[in-house]
Amino acid sequence: MRALVKPTAGPGLVLTTVPDPVIRDDEVLIRVRCAGVCGTDVHIYEWDRWAQGRVRPPLVVGHEFAGDVVEVGHLVTDVRIGDRVTAEGHIVDGRCLLCRTGNAHVCPHTRIIGVDRDGCFADYIAMPATNVWHLDDTTSYEVGGIHDPMGNAFHTALTAEIPGANVLITGCGPIGLFAVGICKAAGAARIIASDVNETRLALARRMGAHDAVHPGAAGAAVRAATDGLGVDVVLEMSGVPAAIRQALELVRVGGRLQMLGIPAAPLEVDFARDVIFKGITIYGVVGRRMYDTWIAMSRFLRAGIFDPTPVITHRFPLDAVDDAMRVITSGEAGKVVFEVA
Amino acid sequence: MRALVKPTAGPGLVLTTVPDPVIRDDEVLIRVRCAGVCGTDVHIYEWDRWAQGRVRPPLVVGHEFAGDVVEVGHLVTDVRIGDRVTAEGHIVDGRCLLCRTGNAHVCPHTRIIGVDRDGCFADYIAMPATNVWHLDDTTSYEVGGIHDPMGNAFHTALTAEIPGANVLITGCGPIGLFAVGICKAAGAARIIASDVNETRLALARRMGAHDAVHPGAAGAAVRAATDGLGVDVVLEMSGVPAAIRQALELVRVGGRLQMLGIPAAPLEVDFARDVIFKGITIYGVVGRRMYDTWIAMSRFLRAGIFDPTPVITHRFPLDAVDDAMRVITSGEAGKVVFEVA
Amino acid sequence: MRALVKPTAGPGLVLTTVPDPVIRDDEVLIRVRCAGVCGTDVHIYEWDRWAQGRVRPPLVVGHEFAGDVVEVGHLVTDVRIGDRVTAEGHIVDGRCLLCRTGNAHVCPHTRIIGVDRDGCFADYIAMPATNVWHLDDTTSYEVGGIHDPMGNAFHTALTAEIPGANVLITGCGPIGLFAVGICKAAGAARIIASDVNETRLALARRMGAHDAVHPGAAGAAVRAATDGLGVDVVLEMSGVPAAIRQALELVRVGGRLQMLGIPAAPLEVDFARDVIFKGITIYGVVGRRMYDTWIAMSRFLRAGIFDPTPVITHRFPLDAVDDAMRVITSGEAGKVVFEVA
Amino acid sequence: MRALVKPTAGPGLVLTTVPDPVIRDDEVLIRVRCAGVCGTDVHIYEWDRWAQGRVRPPLVVGHEFAGDVVEVGHLVTDVRIGDRVTAEGHIVDGRCLLCRTGNAHVCPHTRIIGVDRDGCFADYIAMPATNVWHLDDTTSYEVGGIHDPMGNAFHTALTAEIPGANVLITGCGPIGLFAVGICKAAGAARIIASDVNETRLALARRMGAHDAVHPGAAGAAVRAATDGLGVDVVLEMSGVPAAIRQALELVRVGGRLQMLGIPAAPLEVDFARDVIFKGITIYGVVGRRMYDTWIAMSRFLRAGIFDPTPVITHRFPLDAVDDAMRVITSGEAGKVVFEVA
Repeated sequence: MRALVKPTAGPGLVLTTVPDPVIRDDEVLIRVRCAGVCGTDVHIYEWDRWAQGRVRPPLVVGHEFAGDVVEVGHLVTDVRIGDRVTAEGHIVDGRCLLCRTGNAHVCPHTRIIGVDRDGCFADYIAMPATNVWHLDDTTSYEVGGIHDPMGNAFHTALTAEIPGANVLITGCGPIGLFAVGICKAAGAARIIASDVNETRLALARRMGAHDAVHPGAAGAAVRAATDGLGVDVVLEMSGVPAAIRQALELVRVGGRLQMLGIPAAPLEVDFARDVIFKGITIYGVVGRRMYDTWIAMSRFLRAGIFDPTPVITHRFPLDAVDDAMRVITSGEAGKVVFEVA
Repeated sequence: MRALVKPTAGPGLVLTTVPDPVIRDDEVLIRVRCAGVCGTDVHIYEWDRWAQGRVRPPLVVGHEFAGDVVEVGHLVTDVRIGDRVTAEGHIVDGRCLLCRTGNAHVCPHTRIIGVDRDGCFADYIAMPATNVWHLDDTTSYEVGGIHDPMGNAFHTALTAEIPGANVLITGCGPIGLFAVGICKAAGAARIIASDVNETRLALARRMGAHDAVHPGAAGAAVRAATDGLGVDVVLEMSGVPAAIRQALELVRVGGRLQMLGIPAAPLEVDFARDVIFKGITIYGVVGRRMYDTWIAMSRFLRAGIFDPTPVITHRFPLDAVDDAMRVITSGEAGKVVFEVA
Repeated sequence: MRALVKPTAGPGLVLTTVPDPVIRDDEVLIRVRCAGVCGTDVHIYEWDRWAQGRVRPPLVVGHEFAGDVVEVGHLVTDVRIGDRVTAEGHIVDGRCLLCRTGNAHVCPHTRIIGVDRDGCFADYIAMPATNVWHLDDTTSYEVGGIHDPMGNAFHTALTAEIPGANVLITGCGPIGLFAVGICKAAGAARIIASDVNETRLALARRMGAHDAVHPGAAGAAVRAATDGLGVDVVLEMSGVPAAIRQALELVRVGGRLQMLGIPAAPLEVDFARDVIFKGITIYGVVGRRMYDTWIAMSRFLRAGIFDPTPVITHRFPLDAVDDAMRVITSGEAGKVVFEVA
Repeated sequence: MRALVKPTAGPGLVLTTVPDPVIRDDEVLIRVRCAGVCGTDVHIYEWDRWAQGRVRPPLVVGHEFAGDVVEVGHLVTDVRIGDRVTAEGHIVDGRCLLCRTGNAHVCPHTRIIGVDRDGCFADYIAMPATNVWHLDDTTSYEVGGIHDPMGNAFHTALTAEIPGANVLITGCGPIGLFAVGICKAAGAARIIASDVNETRLALARRMGAHDAVHPGAAGAAVRAATDGLGVDVVLEMSGVPAAIRQALELVRVGGRLQMLGIPAAPLEVDFARDVIFKGITIYGVVGRRMYDTWIAMSRFLRAGIFDPTPVITHRFPLDAVDDAMRVITSGEAGKVVFEVA
């Protein structure tokens, strides 16, 4: 089959031919139709320090996808050939304290497809049946193919109290933009989104932000909307140090900061002033709650109260991987997807 | 001043002239503009058993209102003459374990205006400043005048987890109808409303219900929407025994039942089958959380994501009290208000 | 092997010889050492209406046990021959909305050992590996053999807020007695236990109750300990209608009622007075949270802060089943166990 | 009356004579019997940068105390002359969003006694009646005089889930030591306390720590107790940068970090590795929840499950202020109190 492969340690990805995956008895084989491209894929493409420390080539890359089930292991009872599906890309042990208490998203033995084992930028992928998530008939492969990052946004937003809340979303990459739409659907009273890029701010407005402003204007927007008090909730989606500091500044006393954006380096924070004396709560967001987040996501889509499609700005075939990476790193793109088949 | 008074033990209310209220140092005097009529007022009007046991005539009736502040006690610091306001009608002691732990809505020493002390169906009412709630400039006196029952609906809905939930609302009186709109704004995936009255079902559809059905059809609607599992949340707004039993039947295992409607008599329930083996949670809703509910309510109104005005179906002057009571007991009305001044 | 069997529809159990269980690839075979006897077993023994509707003979009875793993299916990775274990007796589907959101204890497809498939009053039992729970070396088979009902008590107590709480426990059967000890260990400020039986009240005192009283004296004890307000939490462990009504009466406004005891018939409750106007929360307790409850239980045992052994009052060999049933129905016993091997 | 006063900007405190406080109509006058000395008082004594920025001399210092009510303003209804009391030292506005939603402990308009208005190192102090907290007859003035820091410990511990938890407490100053005892009473499975000082470690053992170790040994102790996973909860009581970093390292994935110790300067943290990828929750602890914390504290004391007295190591008269400050800064002391009268 065709696959985008990191063949050896070093920059770049190569579209090449590899053997079809062989499934275990508790796995299914999925024909990939559409696959989302993530910042993680860019790190692997560029072979940055994180990628060098984590990835062991050769590896098929990619972890966001949707497709059709074409083969089913004989221990599998709840997935059938022909099912339209996406999948949770975190493969967990299912037996540890975390998995057994509803916290599988932080299972210490997690293996991620496209990072720790072969991924989805390929014609086929093997997945444990327990990770497979069925798509409604009305959900396109394209939307199915971005359930992973949408799920990050749902996890980030819905573990805060959104109905009636004033919310600041720092960073309008794809996950931040999804979060704007989710907060809108969930009854946020005021959504202030910030980013340095005008294209993204326009998308934020389209997804429902009341204010979509340059970070330099975020403080004034927050103060105007909250009588100077600060927002109830910040969803930090950028990982940019200045944004994290602003998040800490603009969340109100007793408020909540959800941190999803990953800073590239350690960061200096005034815990006394910004965390302790303000009495705030900070929650680190990784992956998706398994499977509370997935159920909520399917429900929002089914109800038609959240539509991620405006966020998808670029579609490429697998062989245009260099173009895909280029538009992402430009900072101008919303969500970028591969149309695989 | 004019006031609707229960002069002596017995049915009826009389519009008469009484002395203007005199305020204490920590109170304010409010010129009433608009006042909502509640089922409680009907009980007092009809002088049913509950009213006979609780109310001590003579009494000015009415507990839902909005108006303008016209006088301010000298200990009051945060309310000014000319402020447009409504008020929480539960006057609590502020010192008990409940008041000191965020549960003032169940303070055992609560005195309710229009029930335990003079109320708002009058030209003026005296209120403790701590109970006064400011209205936004964009909120009409009419909407201000129904903050109390709207608050009941916000309390009922927002103490459950609404975003993404399948919700059944049993009973489409005014509070049930408000709850439909609140759940819609807060991202409920599916809202099924039930009532015996077609006018109210039409209002439920207008407020955002996906299904608005006769109770006999509620089971089928719930099963169709939930693969037979039952809804995540039931908001029981009727107090009708058959509806409460249906609520217990149609809430899913592990789900949540919010009980606001007040049954007229004790009720037989199969706790083994419907509560224990299903592992559900039941929450009794009384009043409004002080003042979390009020803040959320103001936020929803300010954001324009919830509009209660379609629910207001009848407006009367104070001297049409008999007409007002008649339309409420007919079961055909939405919310009924007095236009006082 | 030997097994206590319900051979045909009708009262009684017979100790007989049956074939050894055969395990599936994802199961393990366990040599039973000790097994707890539960009220459910009494229902099956007596062949009451519930048993007639649920149980399909022939069936090996019993669902509480501990023992040694003697055989392991080839798909099993985390259980080994020789492991000392007990097990969660609810065999769930693992794939439904409930199982996927941390609510497997109310999975609608639950099959219970000793009720819906062969149980543990036998020399051997086959269990899915996923249900197996390892015992610490310091935990005896006897204590291991009562993890199921202890787990019910942990589930009931720890889903309320116990540290600093005033707690009423209605019913001092084994689970109620366990709950006394758990609340004591978890920092309850005051524990009032009620029962009609003096032996059980003495055990309640031994497990840490501050007051252990006849139900007729419970009201006075609660009022004395709470300035007349009522307790923060009631754990209803009896299923007796009078106790449930008393629980509703003695829980304070805004308090919490955990219902575990199973009433034999529908029950009349004044929801207006006792649930709605009091603003209480009721939680139906079934089984054990999988596996939060099990982790907490192991932690309490390991820490030595909870010791269930005083509750175990009678030990019998399997062939003394009639004696075991007799002491349970006498109401005089604490926990009764079979010493199997 | 006698009072310890900061007369002008600069180091030191002076015991001098000042006029008796005059109470407002909603205040009471309290004869101080015992007063706790806090790190905050040391900052003011030493006149460090924080004190220079916050305190406006002349000022009577001190914010922890207990005593007898000797005069009552005429608006006060729930405090009487002769009552034995302590008080919440945060005087809040009672009207803001925070105060109205159960978050008065972070009211932006808080004024603290002994910092922003005259304090309790004096014969008398005036307090708003709403801040007064009654002591049980069995609670000594000495224990009453340290309710403020004990309350900090209760707030820190009880906003985490303690029953059954493995807990690391970094820093065994008085508040850390109180927290050890609270966690013990509330059913922590394992309590690991760390400090650099042997005297304090001995006190930690006495208060119930299973392990009381030098910070260099904390990692090994945590790993041994948790199979290498990390603790469920860290209570960070030191404010020391190395301890905060260790707290982040030793809390398990999905765990909770309660930050009370106040770092003297901004601190560099690896949010990606330690917060986001671990999926932890951080809660900033300031003051005491008003008044949930106070109720819990009174309940623990009344039940006799928590005894703070071993933590009190030094008692001084007011005129030994220099000695008191010296023993605190030595790092050898537990809690230090003034015996005022």
